[in-house]
Amino acid sequence: MSARLHTLAATPQSVHWGYFDPDLAPVLTVSSGDLVEIEALTHHAGDAPDLLMDAGIERVFAEVHERGPGPHLLTGPIALAGARPGDVLQVDILSAQPRLAHGSNLAGHWGALYGDFAKERVTVFELDAAAMSARALFAYDWQTTPLVDVPGTIVAPGSVAREPALEGVVVPLRPHFGTMGVVPAARGRHSSVPPGAHGGNIDNWRIGAGARMYYPVQVPGALLSVGDPHVSQGDGEISGTALEASLNGVLRLSVRSDLRLSMPLLETPDELLVHAFGENLDEAMRAAALLTIELLGSRFGLRRDDAYAFCSVAVDFAITQVVDGRQGVHARIEKRCLPFRGA
Amino acid sequence: MSARLHTLAATPQSVHWGYFDPDLAPVLTVSSGDLVEIEALTHHAGDAPDLLMDAGIERVFAEVHERGPGPHLLTGPIALAGARPGDVLQVDILSAQPRLAHGSNLAGHWGALYGDFAKERVTVFELDAAAMSARALFAYDWQTTPLVDVPGTIVAPGSVAREPALEGVVVPLRPHFGTMGVVPAARGRHSSVPPGAHGGNIDNWRIGAGARMYYPVQVPGALLSVGDPHVSQGDGEISGTALEASLNGVLRLSVRSDLRLSMPLLETPDELLVHAFGENLDEAMRAAALLTIELLGSRFGLRRDDAYAFCSVAVDFAITQVVDGRQGVHARIEKRCLPFRGA
Repeated sequence: MSARLHTLAATPQSVHWGYFDPDLAPVLTVSSGDLVEIEALTHHAGDAPDLLMDAGIERVFAEVHERGPGPHLLTGPIALAGARPGDVLQVDILSAQPRLAHGSNLAGHWGALYGDFAKERVTVFELDAAAMSARALFAYDWQTTPLVDVPGTIVAPGSVAREPALEGVVVPLRPHFGTMGVVPAARGRHSSVPPGAHGGNIDNWRIGAGARMYYPVQVPGALLSVGDPHVSQGDGEISGTALEASLNGVLRLSVRSDLRLSMPLLETPDELLVHAFGENLDEAMRAAALLTIELLGSRFGLRRDDAYAFCSVAVDFAITQVVDGRQGVHARIEKRCLPFRGA
Repeated sequence: MSARLHTLAATPQSVHWGYFDPDLAPVLTVSSGDLVEIEALTHHAGDAPDLLMDAGIERVFAEVHERGPGPHLLTGPIALAGARPGDVLQVDILSAQPRLAHGSNLAGHWGALYGDFAKERVTVFELDAAAMSARALFAYDWQTTPLVDVPGTIVAPGSVAREPALEGVVVPLRPHFGTMGVVPAARGRHSSVPPGAHGGNIDNWRIGAGARMYYPVQVPGALLSVGDPHVSQGDGEISGTALEASLNGVLRLSVRSDLRLSMPLLETPDELLVHAFGENLDEAMRAAALLTIELLGSRFGLRRDDAYAFCSVAVDFAITQVVDGRQGVHARIEKRCLPFRGA
């Protein structure tokens, strides 16, 4: 049996906006091992529609009126034939390429320092995909609505003063999917904002080409959705958003019945990254430490005492994001340290 | 005028144990630009005295009875001729080499997961300095005293059961000085545990060979002390200690009257790292964000709005440590991003 290559364009029929919902019907069903060419659209395209939209994106913004409670445009869900709760969905990201030549950062009212700045502000960047870098083109204070709280608001180019920004500054590109995950099992609409065991809005910039994600499957078929594309982000994502820009990706989706996971795990050629979440950073840090010790035991056979010592001398804990309701901490394990019994 | 090379061995006369104190007389006075060969002794040498001590270390443990309130053995203080409050002390770390072939990790009662493990445990590692790696040799539960709270306690080798640990696991070496800093200005003895504007117990594993630290000078002469040597550590230092081992270092000390800093700054060939502290990680994170924006303004001329956006799309925030009373967060700025007007 050979793998198939599917194509999933982002259209009004193949996206859902702002939520995960286990009752949403799949727009595509694939077999384990299949590839999917997928389009992920930035919900920030309205920040500079002349630069961040093309006809396909305009159509989605024009025709998809059911939005919220979260802001994220998601493509999917994709059903994996045979995936069952308790399995793990493995997503190999083979490629993640900018669709257009621009991206946008918003300092939002949910940003870490909104209390200090007391305004929302958009900075639009021009991308150089060949050089894997970006430079700011202009910025403007948000005035289109009192707060940025209507997903997909379009800011008419002439309606704001586009001011110079970040002259001489270069931002390296780190294209990745800010929100990718399986659907939670609980009935109803789940906001796309808080990340969790299902993955979702993890906002780790390492979830890009060359990386492999593992998600614990929550419902039959797994039901993967992909969106919130970023072309760069710093750990922390402090202003509330990344450098947001539409991406085209190629994913290989596989059902792993041989693995057990309680939280999403990221694997790169050199590293394993454990994700944990909490109401504040202290809670997220504690959860990350406990999950890492658990993984070092279950996957590599380390005793708990040993795993704790190993974490202290060799595992790096970092702040994934502080702006998604539930704060994120990830732990970075270097694979070369361990007798590898990995996936 | 040419620079001089000074030698500062760690002896009972040249160390102080557990504190910073502005009234402590300098053990060495140098001119800006001078080099100092310095010995830094681990206060954990008693965890396996047969492996972690030599005659020089034994003498310090035998003769220095004034210890506390912190655990750290510090060499110094070193006075910088002409340094004044408001100046910056620049420390270029030219070398940091293990003195002996072993190191120790303690999971202490101040560790992040002590409540879960409910015991203290020592893991002793053998170092391979040529391969820049370490492997565990044995571990034992702490039983010498009810808690590890007497600095420099010596555990007689035959008094504990040395058990196998971390079989097959390799720890990459990251030799660095856990505690290095200038003396705080306020009179009296300051515990060596909490890091602060003076630097001190920052516990960032990047403070090793090739790195440059900048400390805001607090008193005339700066009065630098160096200790708490580590051969490795993960960001977070979750068990309460690193991989602790004595180091010999070579430092170049320079007074920078042209710089102004409010908090310690680390520079590597590629990065600037801003350190901030707080009563919890959320406070430390907020402080790190504000200090980074301040630095991007003062050093690189970025407007505050621009600096905030830049942080969100390009600056990585990580957890330095969660076990030193004041928790630490550092922000990593890639120098290649910025029009360099740096030190």
